[in-house]
Amino acid sequence: MRRNKRPALSEPEQAAGNGLLDRRLFLTAGAAAIGSAALSDTARAAEALPLDPWMKMPGSPFTPYGQPSRYASKVTRIFASAPGTTGTGSSRTPHHLLDGTITPNGLHFERHHNGIPDINPDAHRLLIHGLVRRPLVFTLDTLMRYPMESRIAFIECAGNGAQLYQKEPAQLGVQPLHGLLSCAEWTGVRLATLLEEAGIGPRAQWLLAEGADASGMSRSVPLEKAMGDALVAIYQNGEPVRPSNGYPLRLLLPGYEGNMNVKWLRRIKLTESPTMTKDETSKYTMLLNDGKSLQFCFAQEAKSVITRPSPGLTMGAPGLYEISGLAWSGYGRIAKVEVSADGGASWALAALQEPVLPMAVTRFRSPWRWDGGAATLQSRATDDSGYVQPSRSKLIADRGARANYHFNGITSWGIAQSGEVKHVYA
Amino acid sequence: MRRNKRPALSEPEQAAGNGLLDRRLFLTAGAAAIGSAALSDTARAAEALPLDPWMKMPGSPFTPYGQPSRYASKVTRIFASAPGTTGTGSSRTPHHLLDGTITPNGLHFERHHNGIPDINPDAHRLLIHGLVRRPLVFTLDTLMRYPMESRIAFIECAGNGAQLYQKEPAQLGVQPLHGLLSCAEWTGVRLATLLEEAGIGPRAQWLLAEGADASGMSRSVPLEKAMGDALVAIYQNGEPVRPSNGYPLRLLLPGYEGNMNVKWLRRIKLTESPTMTKDETSKYTMLLNDGKSLQFCFAQEAKSVITRPSPGLTMGAPGLYEISGLAWSGYGRIAKVEVSADGGASWALAALQEPVLPMAVTRFRSPWRWDGGAATLQSRATDDSGYVQPSRSKLIADRGARANYHFNGITSWGIAQSGEVKHVYA
Repeated sequence: MRRNKRPALSEPEQAAGNGLLDRRLFLTAGAAAIGSAALSDTARAAEALPLDPWMKMPGSPFTPYGQPSRYASKVTRIFASAPGTTGTGSSRTPHHLLDGTITPNGLHFERHHNGIPDINPDAHRLLIHGLVRRPLVFTLDTLMRYPMESRIAFIECAGNGAQLYQKEPAQLGVQPLHGLLSCAEWTGVRLATLLEEAGIGPRAQWLLAEGADASGMSRSVPLEKAMGDALVAIYQNGEPVRPSNGYPLRLLLPGYEGNMNVKWLRRIKLTESPTMTKDETSKYTMLLNDGKSLQFCFAQEAKSVITRPSPGLTMGAPGLYEISGLAWSGYGRIAKVEVSADGGASWALAALQEPVLPMAVTRFRSPWRWDGGAATLQSRATDDSGYVQPSRSKLIADRGARANYHFNGITSWGIAQSGEVKHVYA
Repeated sequence: MRRNKRPALSEPEQAAGNGLLDRRLFLTAGAAAIGSAALSDTARAAEALPLDPWMKMPGSPFTPYGQPSRYASKVTRIFASAPGTTGTGSSRTPHHLLDGTITPNGLHFERHHNGIPDINPDAHRLLIHGLVRRPLVFTLDTLMRYPMESRIAFIECAGNGAQLYQKEPAQLGVQPLHGLLSCAEWTGVRLATLLEEAGIGPRAQWLLAEGADASGMSRSVPLEKAMGDALVAIYQNGEPVRPSNGYPLRLLLPGYEGNMNVKWLRRIKLTESPTMTKDETSKYTMLLNDGKSLQFCFAQEAKSVITRPSPGLTMGAPGLYEISGLAWSGYGRIAKVEVSADGGASWALAALQEPVLPMAVTRFRSPWRWDGGAATLQSRATDDSGYVQPSRSKLIADRGARANYHFNGITSWGIAQSGEVKHVYA
């Protein structure tokens, strides 16, 4: 929908170049001063409101478990599997069509190594053994008696954004580029509670976490993390964890790369040192320039991406827009997000949606008056450790040409005069 | 699953009568000291772990929009419609089977007055008119350009808990009794932004909000609330608002009784005084003893309920349990929740899950050692205005015998020696 540009009634405060406005604009009556895109029908706006067909008949009945509107059929995950498989691959969250911070369970990204097991929760067990005083076996009923905690936490695949290591900008949008990231409220029992009950042996420094899928996905986790904020999650956004996210039990390691948050958790073995599973030797290591690999890169570094506008969402008429996006850090809270409309020449502080929680995504927003000309949008996150999200070129200079995981450099969206939005390097 | 009681290894600190333990118990290694319900197989726990059938075959493939496990088929809403209708009635959230604070969208309660309209978002309009300087018409595309905000907020039907006004305790659980309450992250445009753009006339004190369903549901809202934290919500837990919750637009009035959060929002008319719609005269008023009605009771008072244990969830063996529940107030934040295991004779402070947000549900938790005897569980919320959730008898004494809405008295669950949990008055 395109309409003529209406003149600004007064001049709002600029926060950075190319139309970025002060983030506090909308705490005041400033919106009206810019002139919006609303249709002001000075004739008879009231009579322009149609009596729509759905007001003339009873609506549809109740259902036990609700679904999205049929008109929201594009708000879905995209996915791809390895050749010859239907369940080895990943699906990605459509962040360009979402807002807020919670990812609804039906749209949480997935990364499976051999499909989604159909686990009968009554038959499922969690074993804790290895360097413990007494091995313990938990049923789901048993675990339900333990004190629980909830954490709103993001999970991000180590491979999220990997296409940005490529020499040329992949002509893709935020879903294929950064859709291996989601955020949910997870509830479950602290792993520390269960380990303390088993009794931690004096030599235990690590643990092995194993899933009940057909790939036997397993990872080594430092005991220190396990005794910190780790959860054995039973609930995801209030309801039982979805099969695609580990039903009935998922290990949640807030901030750590996705695959370590082992789904379908069946076994925790306390060990002296890492187990060196296939999933931490042949995969999920950082290939260096000299051909060696960096192992055990656990936490996801601070990162941000603008979700609206982004490729696939064409701009309408020039005028007021909101730049909206997500920022997150596996090292703590987001301290600030800056936004640029001129490819990094100048930066404006974005507003952060409260509450800003550690290891959770933070929604940032910035008002922008698009003048109809070319623009390059970027966002840059800083976390409360002081770490600043690097430019793409700096990241690649630091990581080397063979890096393939943990891409957290700045993403740039180019806006053309036509209103088209494209992935660019800037 | 029942097992023999295991003796406590040491005596944890009592916080109130009949086994209520200090809420900080699980911040320490105290859990182990109580002895849990886990199976400690001193022989060969490791070898007890079966290689389950789902580990021996590839799992199921990716899907565009995920669904719950088939084993979670009981985690659904229950609903009832008025005679001769399929869409006039309500559905209720199964809080006894959920945990955390977010209600997943498929389980958010509903109260419809003539079913769920099947709205085409491209045809939908929002009109703002009445005592404004210029009437405005918004399309969904237009609204998407405005700055947004997110709020995690509960919505509670004014009729939630109405059965507790009955003389005898209804033999029902938390879903039928208190399931007209849900909590989601709502994202949209501040209504204040839109009203300021339309220009608020000097005589405007109220507004009429009208939905696009076949019942023409409409309510009068004080302008002060509209200019405060009211949102025109476009997203619910990240994705487009569900049809059953107002797709494509819902008015969100945090803390106000559910029906005022008008779904399928199509019209806002600024007025000098309330419009006196059918939905605020024939319904949603508080009938007093003298036959008069109290009108315009907007905010939901502070309230809490224990969700686990609750009727339908039979206790297992005596020993350690967690008492878990929800507390909320339409007047602000929850300041504290107290829990009693002896019908109100003594109270222990429950732990509150952070973050504690205004107008959102707060999860409270309290460790409890059930000795296998009779117990009466209660919870009592206090909000940050200092208001204390009243006992049922005090509430009824204050409200009169004909009250039917806004029940926020204390709910009591009786635990029998058999482990059965029943709704009781205490």
